[in-house]
Amino acid sequence: MSAEIAAAARAAAAPGTEIGIAEPAFGSVAIDSAAESYLSAVGVMDVVATALAEGTFDADAVVLAGFGEHGKDALQEMLDVPVLDIAESAAHVALLIGRRFSVVTTLARSIAPIEDRLLLAGLAAHCASVRACGLGTAEVDADPDGAVAAIVAEAARAVREDGADVICLGCAGMAGVTEAISATVGVPCVDGVAAAVGLAQMLVGLGLSTSKAGVYAAGPDNPRSHWPMSAALGLR
Amino acid sequence: MSAEIAAAARAAAAPGTEIGIAEPAFGSVAIDSAAESYLSAVGVMDVVATALAEGTFDADAVVLAGFGEHGKDALQEMLDVPVLDIAESAAHVALLIGRRFSVVTTLARSIAPIEDRLLLAGLAAHCASVRACGLGTAEVDADPDGAVAAIVAEAARAVREDGADVICLGCAGMAGVTEAISATVGVPCVDGVAAAVGLAQMLVGLGLSTSKAGVYAAGPDNPRSHWPMSAALGLR
Amino acid sequence: MSAEIAAAARAAAAPGTEIGIAEPAFGSVAIDSAAESYLSAVGVMDVVATALAEGTFDADAVVLAGFGEHGKDALQEMLDVPVLDIAESAAHVALLIGRRFSVVTTLARSIAPIEDRLLLAGLAAHCASVRACGLGTAEVDADPDGAVAAIVAEAARAVREDGADVICLGCAGMAGVTEAISATVGVPCVDGVAAAVGLAQMLVGLGLSTSKAGVYAAGPDNPRSHWPMSAALGLR
Amino acid sequence: MSAEIAAAARAAAAPGTEIGIAEPAFGSVAIDSAAESYLSAVGVMDVVATALAEGTFDADAVVLAGFGEHGKDALQEMLDVPVLDIAESAAHVALLIGRRFSVVTTLARSIAPIEDRLLLAGLAAHCASVRACGLGTAEVDADPDGAVAAIVAEAARAVREDGADVICLGCAGMAGVTEAISATVGVPCVDGVAAAVGLAQMLVGLGLSTSKAGVYAAGPDNPRSHWPMSAALGLR
Amino acid sequence: MSAEIAAAARAAAAPGTEIGIAEPAFGSVAIDSAAESYLSAVGVMDVVATALAEGTFDADAVVLAGFGEHGKDALQEMLDVPVLDIAESAAHVALLIGRRFSVVTTLARSIAPIEDRLLLAGLAAHCASVRACGLGTAEVDADPDGAVAAIVAEAARAVREDGADVICLGCAGMAGVTEAISATVGVPCVDGVAAAVGLAQMLVGLGLSTSKAGVYAAGPDNPRSHWPMSAALGLR
Amino acid sequence: MSAEIAAAARAAAAPGTEIGIAEPAFGSVAIDSAAESYLSAVGVMDVVATALAEGTFDADAVVLAGFGEHGKDALQEMLDVPVLDIAESAAHVALLIGRRFSVVTTLARSIAPIEDRLLLAGLAAHCASVRACGLGTAEVDADPDGAVAAIVAEAARAVREDGADVICLGCAGMAGVTEAISATVGVPCVDGVAAAVGLAQMLVGLGLSTSKAGVYAAGPDNPRSHWPMSAALGLR
Repeated sequence: MSAEIAAAARAAAAPGTEIGIAEPAFGSVAIDSAAESYLSAVGVMDVVATALAEGTFDADAVVLAGFGEHGKDALQEMLDVPVLDIAESAAHVALLIGRRFSVVTTLARSIAPIEDRLLLAGLAAHCASVRACGLGTAEVDADPDGAVAAIVAEAARAVREDGADVICLGCAGMAGVTEAISATVGVPCVDGVAAAVGLAQMLVGLGLSTSKAGVYAAGPDNPRSHWPMSAALGLR
Repeated sequence: MSAEIAAAARAAAAPGTEIGIAEPAFGSVAIDSAAESYLSAVGVMDVVATALAEGTFDADAVVLAGFGEHGKDALQEMLDVPVLDIAESAAHVALLIGRRFSVVTTLARSIAPIEDRLLLAGLAAHCASVRACGLGTAEVDADPDGAVAAIVAEAARAVREDGADVICLGCAGMAGVTEAISATVGVPCVDGVAAAVGLAQMLVGLGLSTSKAGVYAAGPDNPRSHWPMSAALGLR
Repeated sequence: MSAEIAAAARAAAAPGTEIGIAEPAFGSVAIDSAAESYLSAVGVMDVVATALAEGTFDADAVVLAGFGEHGKDALQEMLDVPVLDIAESAAHVALLIGRRFSVVTTLARSIAPIEDRLLLAGLAAHCASVRACGLGTAEVDADPDGAVAAIVAEAARAVREDGADVICLGCAGMAGVTEAISATVGVPCVDGVAAAVGLAQMLVGLGLSTSKAGVYAAGPDNPRSHWPMSAALGLR
Repeated sequence: MSAEIAAAARAAAAPGTEIGIAEPAFGSVAIDSAAESYLSAVGVMDVVATALAEGTFDADAVVLAGFGEHGKDALQEMLDVPVLDIAESAAHVALLIGRRFSVVTTLARSIAPIEDRLLLAGLAAHCASVRACGLGTAEVDADPDGAVAAIVAEAARAVREDGADVICLGCAGMAGVTEAISATVGVPCVDGVAAAVGLAQMLVGLGLSTSKAGVYAAGPDNPRSHWPMSAALGLR
Repeated sequence: MSAEIAAAARAAAAPGTEIGIAEPAFGSVAIDSAAESYLSAVGVMDVVATALAEGTFDADAVVLAGFGEHGKDALQEMLDVPVLDIAESAAHVALLIGRRFSVVTTLARSIAPIEDRLLLAGLAAHCASVRACGLGTAEVDADPDGAVAAIVAEAARAVREDGADVICLGCAGMAGVTEAISATVGVPCVDGVAAAVGLAQMLVGLGLSTSKAGVYAAGPDNPRSHWPMSAALGLR
Repeated sequence: MSAEIAAAARAAAAPGTEIGIAEPAFGSVAIDSAAESYLSAVGVMDVVATALAEGTFDADAVVLAGFGEHGKDALQEMLDVPVLDIAESAAHVALLIGRRFSVVTTLARSIAPIEDRLLLAGLAAHCASVRACGLGTAEVDADPDGAVAAIVAEAARAVREDGADVICLGCAGMAGVTEAISATVGVPCVDGVAAAVGLAQMLVGLGLSTSKAGVYAAGPDNPRSHWPMSAALGLR
C-alpha cells in the first residue's frame, strides 16, 4: 500500500518536489478501528521524533496518508513545517471546485471517524454524505476491478441521492479509481493524497506553516518513558 | 496523581463498588499535548489488551481519567463492559442539574481538546465556555492553595460573564476544589471522576453496555507487530 | 399505565431505593397533544405544591414520566432535589453507550415535541431520528403483542436506514419492549423510566442537585388564584 | 397590564380591526417563572375552550401576549384561526427590517425561556442577544421613567456590544419604550404586541391559517376531568 | 410573467394598496443562473436609482419578485422604505402557520440559491426541503396544466417524505398553483408574492422600515462610471 | 489598487505562472456596499463574457480579488477553468495552518458580507471573528502607516480576545501588512490574493476544475439585452 501511496503522491507532485515515504516501525498493517488509528498516530509520532532526534528530519512538509485517522495535531505540535491530513485536504479541494461533496470509503466502520475528522476541522457543512462500499482491504486486494466498480457505484449513489457534485476518495492507494469515477459518474473525484501534496506545495510556496501561537505550540517537556518507542523496542 | 484520582473515585463510589487503578506501563507523566494524549491512549489500550490476554480483566466498567483525552472509542471497541470518559461524564451530569455549564481547566492548551471532545460527543450545545486558569501541573503541585484560588476565580468568571450555572472541573485529582467552588461561587461543581463513577454504576445497574451494532463493534484482526507493547518492551 | 411505570421504575431501582408514584388530581387520561402536555405539567406542579404545602414532600428526587412532555423546569424551580425527565434521561444513557440513537414512539404527533425536548436540552446532535409506529394508546391496549411488533419493526428501520446503534423507547409503561428490541434488532434499548431512576440515584449518590444560581432559582412569589388547584377544586 | 396591552394592540391595528381582550379566569398576576408560564398556558386554553364550548368564540386570529411563554402550540391545535406569539412575531418583524436583533426584557430569569422560544421557532440564527435590564414588575410599576431608562440603556449595549441593528422589546404593556429606544439608540424597536397584530391581520388578509396536516392537527379526544377548569372551579 | 406577478400582487393587496410594476431596462428575460441573478440585481438597482434621480420614486415599500435571487440588500441600502424578498417572505409566513415548510421550485439548478437565501436570512432551521419539479420556463409556458400537476406532485412528496406541513411556491407568476396544492395535498401553500405584499403592508402599517444603523446604512459615495446604466445605455 | 493586487499576486506566484490583470470596463472605483458588489460582479462577468466572445480568454484559472464580494458562482457557471474567491481562499489556507482564524478588514460595513461569504462557503465553523479597523479607503490612502498600525492592533485583539491563531487580511492590495502582523502579533497572516494564487496553481497542477454536474453547470441561454454590457456601452 505504501508503494501505491508513493506513486499517487509522485504523480501529483510538481517537478522539483521530492516525495519521501516513511512508515511506522511498529503497529498494524491496516487501520480499520479507533485502536489501530491511535497506534498509527503513535507510530508516526515515533518516526518523526526519531528523525528529529537523529537530526535527519529534512522535509518541507509532512502528509499523513490515513483517511480519517488521528495524528495530525500531534505532528503539528512537534514540527515547524506544515502537516497535512488527507481527509481534510480532500475536503478543502472539493469545496474549491463544487458545492457539496461526498466521501466514498471502503468499510462502514470508517464512516464515523471520517465524519468526526471533518466536523473537528470545520469542514462538515457542505459534506453531503460519507458512504462506504462495504469492501475490506482483503477483498479489495483480491478483486481490484470489483472494488473499483463498487466504489464507482457508491459514488453514483452519492451524486444521485445526496446531491454531491464532487466525490472524495476515502481511502489511499487505489490507482485508477478517480479516473473511473470522473468518467462514469461525471463529477470530479479528489484523491486525498494528491490533494495533500498539492496543498503542501502551496503552503511551502507561500512560506506559510502551522501557527505556534495556539494549540499547536510545542508541548511542555513532560518526562516520557520508552521514547522514542522504536528505539526502546530495539528497532533502531 | 493516580492516588488522588483513586481517592476521588472511592469517595464517589457506592458501598459495594470496588475501585481498581491501572496505569499505563509506558508514556508521559502528565498529559498536556495531543502527542501525549495519543501516547496515553495507546498506553491504556495496552493495559486493557494485556489484561484481556492474561485473562485478568474483570472490571464491570472502565473509567478513563484524562479530561479531554483520547482513547474511549478504542476501549469501547475492545471491551464489552461500559467505558466512561470523565469529560463527557461531567458534561452529562452538568446538563442534568443546570442549563449551561462551563469547564475550568489548568492550561490554556487544554481548552481545544476539551472543546473537541464535547463537540464529538454531541454535548457542546449547552457548554457556555471552556476556561483555563493558566497554571501548569508543576505550579499546581508547588502551590495547591493558590491553584484552588485560581480555579475558583475562573469559575466565578464563567458564571458571571458566560452565564454558566454549573461548573465542571476540567482536571483530575484536585481534592477540595469542588467544595471550594460550590461554597464560593454558589453553583454546583461536577468532578469528572466522580461523575464517571456514578454513571458507570448506573449503567451496570441497568444492565446496559456499549452498542456493538455500530462503530464500536470489535475491529478486524489486522496483524500487529509488537503488541501488546508492554510485553514487547519487556515490561511484563 | 401508572402501575406499569411503577413496575418499570422498581425493576430498575437499586436495593434500598423506594419508588413512590404520584398522579395529578385532574387532567387527561393520556397525553397526546401540546394542550394535554401543559395540563399535565400543571397537574404535576399541583401534586408537588400540595405536598410541599402539607409538609409531606419527602422524595430525594423526582422523575417525570411523560416522554417529551412539559414540566421539568417548573419542578426544578419549585424543588431543591433533582428532577429528571425521561426523554432527556434516555438520551443521556444512549449517548453513553452508543454513537447515534433513535427514539421510537407511538403516534406521529409525538415526534415534534420529542424533537423539541431534545433540542432544548442540548441533546439533539447525535439523535439519528425520532420515529413513530403509528399506534395510539387504545390500539396498544387492544393488541399489546401487535404493538410490540410494530415498535420493534420501527426500531429496525431506525438502525438500518438512520444509522442508529441505540434505541430509546419513546413512551412509558410498555413491558417487554426493550428486551424484544435488543433481542430482535441487536442494539441496546433504553427505557426512559429506568434511565431516569438510574440517573436520579446517581445524582443523589453524588450529592448533586439542580443549580439554583440561574434559571431554576425559585420564582418570585407573584400572587396566584386557585392554587393549589386540587384544593380549589375540592379534591383534597 | 391588560389595559396597556389592549391599548398597544389597538394603536397597531388597522382601521376595521377590532381588538378583544381575554384574560385567564385563574392563575398568576404576573409570569416570571416556568411554573407561572405553564399555569398561564392552561389559563388561556381554558378561556378558548370555554368560548368554543359556549359557541362564543368569534375571533379571526388570536394573539398570545406573553413574551417567551408557553401555549401557542396548544391553541394552534384547538383553533382553526391563526395563533400568534408575541416573541416570535417580534423576531419575524425584526428579521424583515434588519440583520441582527436583540431582545431586551426585564428580569434575567426571562432570558432562558425567550432563547428557548426563538430556538424552537427556528428564529435564533440572527438573534444577537437576549438581555435583561434587571427590573421586576414591581420596580417597573414604582418607577416607570427609571424603567424606560434602564431598558434604553440595555438596548444601547445590545447595539454597541452585540451588533444588533434592531431591538425587540421583550415584555408587553410598556408604553413609550419603543419610541424612546428609536429616538435614543437610533435603531428600530419592535413591540411584540404590535408585530403580532400586524402579522395576524396579514394572515387573515391572505386567507391563511395554521396547517392541520402536521403537529397542529386537532388532538385525540382523550377524556379529561375538571375541564374547562374555570367551570369546574365555579368561575363561569 | 410581469403581468401574472402583478395580478398575484393585486389579488393579495388590501383595498387601498396600489401595486406598481417596474421592470429592469436591460438584462435577461428569465433568471435561471447566478449570472442572470446578478444582472437582474443590477437591473433593479438601476430602476430604483433612476427613479430616485428623477424624483419619481414614490413607493411605500418595494417587493423583489425573484425567488432566491440577489438584490434585496442593495435596495435596502439605497432606500428608506421597506424592501421585501419573496423567498424570505414566503418562509416567514410559512413559519407562522406551520412547523416545517418545503419550497417547490421549477428547475433543480434553482435549489441551491434558494437554500442560500434562506440560510443567509436565518430562516433555514425549519425548512424541510427545497425541491424542484424539473420543468423549465419554456415547458411551463407550453403546458401550464402539466406544470401545475408536476408541482403538486412534488409538493405531495415534500409532505410525505420530508415532513413538511406547509408548502412555499418557489417561483412567481403561476396562477392557480396554490389552490391546487391546498386542495390536493391538504396543506397550506404560500405564494411569495402574496406573502411579500402582505408583509409590506404590515410594515408600512406599523411605521417600521429597514434599520439604517448597521449594514443597510447608505453606502459611501464611491465614484461610479456609466450609472445609472439605463441612461448610459441611452434607454431613458 | 489593481497594481498593488497584481504585485501581490506576482509575488505569490510560482516561477512560470503568468499573472494577468483584468478590470471591469464600468462600475465603482471601490466596493463598500452590496450595491457596488453586485455592480462589480456584473463588471467581471462582462470582462469574461467579452473575452469568451472575442476568443481571447486564455487563463488557466481566475481569481476574483474582492474580499467578501459577489461573483464567483457566476464565473463558475461561465467558465471551465477554476475560479477562486480571495475570502474563501484565505479561509482555506488559514484552516490548514491553525485552529481558529479571524478576518481583519477595513470598514465595519464589510463585516456582514464577509460573514455571509464564509457561511455560504461552509467555512464559518472555525472563524473566531470578523473585525474591522474602521478606516475607509481614503483614510488608508492618506495614511498608509497609520492604517497598517490600526490593522495590526485589531489583529492583536482578535488573537487575545477571540482566540484566533491565524489572521486573514480582509482586503486586497495592502503591501507590508502580513509581515507586520506576523512580526508584531506572532501569528501567521494570510493574504487572500496570495492564497488564491497558490490554490489556483494547486488546482491547475492537479488537473481539477469546477464540477459541472450541479449548480455550476452552464446556465440556459435565456435571451439577454445589452450584453456584453461594455459593448452595448460602446466601451469595446
